[in-house]
Amino acid sequence: MMEDKSDNIKESRIEGRNPVIEALRASKPIDRLYVQDGLNDGPVMTIKREARKRDIYIKYVPKDRLDKMSETGMHQGVIAVSAAYEYSDMEDIFAKANDRGESPFVYILDGIEDPHNLGAIIRTANLAGAHGVIIREDRAVGLTGVVARTSAGAINYTPVVRVTNISKTIEELKNRGMWFVCADMDGVPMYEVDMTGSIGLIIGSEGDGVSRLVKSRCDYVASIPMKGDIDSLNASVAAAVLGYEAVRQRMGMNGKS
Amino acid sequence: MMEDKSDNIKESRIEGRNPVIEALRASKPIDRLYVQDGLNDGPVMTIKREARKRDIYIKYVPKDRLDKMSETGMHQGVIAVSAAYEYSDMEDIFAKANDRGESPFVYILDGIEDPHNLGAIIRTANLAGAHGVIIREDRAVGLTGVVARTSAGAINYTPVVRVTNISKTIEELKNRGMWFVCADMDGVPMYEVDMTGSIGLIIGSEGDGVSRLVKSRCDYVASIPMKGDIDSLNASVAAAVLGYEAVRQRMGMNGKS
Repeated sequence: MMEDKSDNIKESRIEGRNPVIEALRASKPIDRLYVQDGLNDGPVMTIKREARKRDIYIKYVPKDRLDKMSETGMHQGVIAVSAAYEYSDMEDIFAKANDRGESPFVYILDGIEDPHNLGAIIRTANLAGAHGVIIREDRAVGLTGVVARTSAGAINYTPVVRVTNISKTIEELKNRGMWFVCADMDGVPMYEVDMTGSIGLIIGSEGDGVSRLVKSRCDYVASIPMKGDIDSLNASVAAAVLGYEAVRQRMGMNGKS
Repeated sequence: MMEDKSDNIKESRIEGRNPVIEALRASKPIDRLYVQDGLNDGPVMTIKREARKRDIYIKYVPKDRLDKMSETGMHQGVIAVSAAYEYSDMEDIFAKANDRGESPFVYILDGIEDPHNLGAIIRTANLAGAHGVIIREDRAVGLTGVVARTSAGAINYTPVVRVTNISKTIEELKNRGMWFVCADMDGVPMYEVDMTGSIGLIIGSEGDGVSRLVKSRCDYVASIPMKGDIDSLNASVAAAVLGYEAVRQRMGMNGKS
């Protein structure tokens, strides 16, 4: 359970000015950028500007360091490094639950776009004892360096599975005995929803919440009490609050009330 | 209760190249930077670079716009605008609880340093129905533009009070009948701590948790169950999970378990 999974990180390199500019403009996941000391010409300034806009760490190094790093011999003073984390299979989630002798408990994210939110949810999922996180392939952030950093290491332990169609995945998992609870404001109070068995908690996107089709597939719609003046909790906070209500129920804790 | 408090924002301006560079290097809170169109000389490039590093929004405007904005007439092509939000008094918190006919429920933050965490906690505090947030003056972030943005508007409704000495504040609030619960891993499970009355939830700093002196002043130390492989929840997530356990208790909800 505590094995080091850092071997699931594959680094890839993008070398040369045009390839790096194109990767930046296409918003490809880049974790850090190596730039040759003292280069200040137009294309390099453009690269540095684009990198800063996207909060990418820039490291200035001597030319011979870049020469050593280069795989193509054509770096032209810039090498971008992206860390692509590997996704797990659905079976990894069931295996983890099985190893612990627990009913499966997963998060399903219906379109989280902010890497800080995804990283925070993976971190919370790990500590809440969830067996995995399922994310959507389209219109959603994947496993990038920012996600890994924000997860505080949880990405190395908690399986993250990427699927093409969330509603189809829900149907498949229902056939394996799972129940689905979607977080939405018009649901019943979360305290009244049973989350003790094989359960998937569905968290919607930052802007739009859970999509209509996915919501129609859920067994329950659960709401988090909102007692304030503004509209909604941050997506990663909502995931934590709902997930920890599941933790309370799964521990059989009533406590004071 | 829904009054618009946006009049608690005081904008201040920093004009001219050296003053702006100095403000950036001293990490003063700056929300946006106005730069004259077409200026590309060394000092302006330095200002833009420093601003991008710190993720400050840069707006390019014609010279006559800057001339109109300028209070000194000496803008030299750059004006930085910082929004300083006003703090509330402790009495605002008690008044809010009193208006709602509720026992006071506050967050006390013992050294939150990340503005995103402070903003997220103010947002959560608002929605959990807390009557205020108390923060520390030294070694902690104050109310900046990033905090305001991350709070999703909650900063306009939830009083934020800044104090010089958290332990002294706790003692004073104890004399007004409040009880204090500090979040720490070595505490009793949070479900066993009564959070239904006049209560202050104390959240520690991102790196060090609750300081020893503050912890010694608390009536209870409550722990959030940790069922994973990594060390700890993010500070704003921990604040939300503990705060919503208080919500559950205060609503008298046992729910399924």
